[in-house]
Amino acid sequence: MSHASYPRALRRLINELSRLPSIGEKTAARLAQHLLSHQSERARQLADALRDAAESVRFCDECFFFSDSERCPICQDPKRDRSVICVVEKPADIIAIERCAGFVGVYHVLHGLWSPLRGVGPEKTRLPELLKRVRAGQESDDALRPKVHEIILATGMTVEGDATALFISREVESYGVRVTRIAQGLPKGGELEYADELTLTHAFEGRRNL
Amino acid sequence: MSHASYPRALRRLINELSRLPSIGEKTAARLAQHLLSHQSERARQLADALRDAAESVRFCDECFFFSDSERCPICQDPKRDRSVICVVEKPADIIAIERCAGFVGVYHVLHGLWSPLRGVGPEKTRLPELLKRVRAGQESDDALRPKVHEIILATGMTVEGDATALFISREVESYGVRVTRIAQGLPKGGELEYADELTLTHAFEGRRNL
Repeated sequence: MSHASYPRALRRLINELSRLPSIGEKTAARLAQHLLSHQSERARQLADALRDAAESVRFCDECFFFSDSERCPICQDPKRDRSVICVVEKPADIIAIERCAGFVGVYHVLHGLWSPLRGVGPEKTRLPELLKRVRAGQESDDALRPKVHEIILATGMTVEGDATALFISREVESYGVRVTRIAQGLPKGGELEYADELTLTHAFEGRRNL
Repeated sequence: MSHASYPRALRRLINELSRLPSIGEKTAARLAQHLLSHQSERARQLADALRDAAESVRFCDECFFFSDSERCPICQDPKRDRSVICVVEKPADIIAIERCAGFVGVYHVLHGLWSPLRGVGPEKTRLPELLKRVRAGQESDDALRPKVHEIILATGMTVEGDATALFISREVESYGVRVTRIAQGLPKGGELEYADELTLTHAFEGRRNL
């Protein structure tokens, strides 16, 4: 598909948009046209929002969730139980868990998973910082940084999510911390007939008394 | 879906992105996270491209295609036949036609279609400017603005595209200009078995000698 007749700045915009995940070149061209309609007002608004976010959004020094200060609102909240750390792959996972409103601990965002096939080792994630948090808790008597009692591994139920969870559980073993993994089983509304073997196996293994 | 825990600037960015066509809130959140990774470098690049485009991209004074000067490259091209105007709904349609590389005339972008159901009259499109072009051609003896011989109506085969085409053909009738409509029929590779009745009817009506 050739955009040779488009002005240079428009080609640049289409090119930038098509680099976004799940946005192909046709969609990028359509989005660019939409943004440049109405005296380019929409393009300016989005540019402002991007600049604003690029300048003010950073990661929390403690858990690496999005933040606009050194500590994110969750890490700053005195009602949160700092002795329970839930480990997730990416910031959006926190939003998903917060929506359920049952978890009162704090988080740790890995910003990636251990992926040998893509050459991403655990050291390229925020795992070293997690170990540092656990270690600091063991050593300090600061109330704001209590001893970590439990690490809940809430990475996805994929090969990489499982491998990362296993890797972390081995790394923190020596600190005497309880390490748990969120349950794998049939999803709400899931029918046995259509469940894959692994899911069903895990659902049986994880059965509980009623 | 609540993004209450996200920093204000991030919520603003997600909100701006989710106003784009075909981008829902979940996709917007994913795009925002992608843009803010790697020290927000991607967010800055896209912001620059948007500013650049908003400032330098305008519409051609003649045909209303995207341009970075008063006249777009097509209208400036001396090899183009200015006596044949192909009327399209939006700039992307020109790219589609140029890809076939058979058309040597010029264009006119309506930037909309006549849509009574959505309260959009023909006067809200660039139709008045098309009539002005035709009229100016009739009156002038400027070689750069020759008499218009043919208007090819290349709006889509939708109710609105058909209505707009019909409306335009009536409006330019009085100028003695030949008005044609692009053919409707079976698409390449289309099987009769799966064609809808209207398409098949048009395909029969539009049959040609072999």
